[in-house]
Amino acid sequence: MHRLYHLPLSPFCRKVRLVLAEKRVEAELIEERPWDRRLDFLRMNPAGKVPVFVTTEGRVLAESAAICDYLEAIMTEPELMPRDAVQRAEVLRLIGWFDDKFYREVTENLLFERVTKRLARLGYPDGACLKAGSQNIRIHLDYMTYLLEGHNWIAGPRMTLADITAAAHLSCLDYCGDVPWEDYPVVRDWYAVMKSRPGFRGLLADHLPGMKPPPHYADLDF
Amino acid sequence: MHRLYHLPLSPFCRKVRLVLAEKRVEAELIEERPWDRRLDFLRMNPAGKVPVFVTTEGRVLAESAAICDYLEAIMTEPELMPRDAVQRAEVLRLIGWFDDKFYREVTENLLFERVTKRLARLGYPDGACLKAGSQNIRIHLDYMTYLLEGHNWIAGPRMTLADITAAAHLSCLDYCGDVPWEDYPVVRDWYAVMKSRPGFRGLLADHLPGMKPPPHYADLDF
Repeated sequence: MHRLYHLPLSPFCRKVRLVLAEKRVEAELIEERPWDRRLDFLRMNPAGKVPVFVTTEGRVLAESAAICDYLEAIMTEPELMPRDAVQRAEVLRLIGWFDDKFYREVTENLLFERVTKRLARLGYPDGACLKAGSQNIRIHLDYMTYLLEGHNWIAGPRMTLADITAAAHLSCLDYCGDVPWEDYPVVRDWYAVMKSRPGFRGLLADHLPGMKPPPHYADLDF
Repeated sequence: MHRLYHLPLSPFCRKVRLVLAEKRVEAELIEERPWDRRLDFLRMNPAGKVPVFVTTEGRVLAESAAICDYLEAIMTEPELMPRDAVQRAEVLRLIGWFDDKFYREVTENLLFERVTKRLARLGYPDGACLKAGSQNIRIHLDYMTYLLEGHNWIAGPRMTLADITAAAHLSCLDYCGDVPWEDYPVVRDWYAVMKSRPGFRGLLADHLPGMKPPPHYADLDF
């Protein structure tokens, strides 16, 4: 069977898990804590990051963009990347938005401070980062509202990898109770639909020892 | 004519400029300083980042990954992304390596501190960042040596977008004299070949007011 080395609350790993489920590709999940710098893991991915995907035949793929591109090529249905060049560019722009801008402005400030520091024993959360992250997420939720009001999905009239990327990031923050859903009903409605996608069941069942998610986290009708 | 909003010493903009030249797509270069937060620019790209590519027909594309994917789709020759799914994954892994890992560990520490802070009047370089960047670049040059000794190009037997990405990052650092070429002859030989590619002429002619590059910067036989 394929294997995915992952961390439960990594948005990049969650993106790959969601794509695997959409495409009905089964893979064994193996939790890997990159900060342990396990030698066998570094041999697979010298970048020392998750996710790493190992195919049944033993091919090793690293970087979520590379793994998602590979899965899109070998399992064309359902299509998560449009074929039209201009539409693809819009999907890739928004993937970049979440994986770079949202990640730096929101995910790192909140998730790294609250979760990674705790797991990797790097000290206490930095209050200034938490404050910046909580303020920044509102700007992003405003922008998502604008996008979703124009069309039902993030990048256009169909669900794409951009929706999966956005949902992967938000789902990690939601585990920490960091998403002010009540002020963003358009985004909440979209997220409720995403939550009912096949891959979400696994994400909603994730549990970090000593860190309980808020009650609405796993609730499909939140 | 197409237009590219760019910053001369941004590795992401340089990557797009190199791809444009490889594919013989002409574009007018317009310098944009994102930190000025010009409203008309933010309307084109609410992420507030360069590069932004505007086609003759007025389509606006943002994020270097999106622009490069678009150019690959509309101008298939020369092919910078392999068609084989596994080879593509390796190219994308290495693009991620440079745009994320190398960028965070090296480019940001050196280029942001030395150049962006000066241009955007954000104060003096932080000595700890410069030191970290100078140490980290050696680890990356070691890894590039390992890759280039296995095959002539970064990701395999042919030049790909991974080579262009790596060269774009290194060329910015080289402008600041931050690449210890003398200790990495294998990487230097590869970079000398990259320097002779069509798009490099433009990069080597870039000049920042008050910041002269070292004499070898524009020398093809350095």
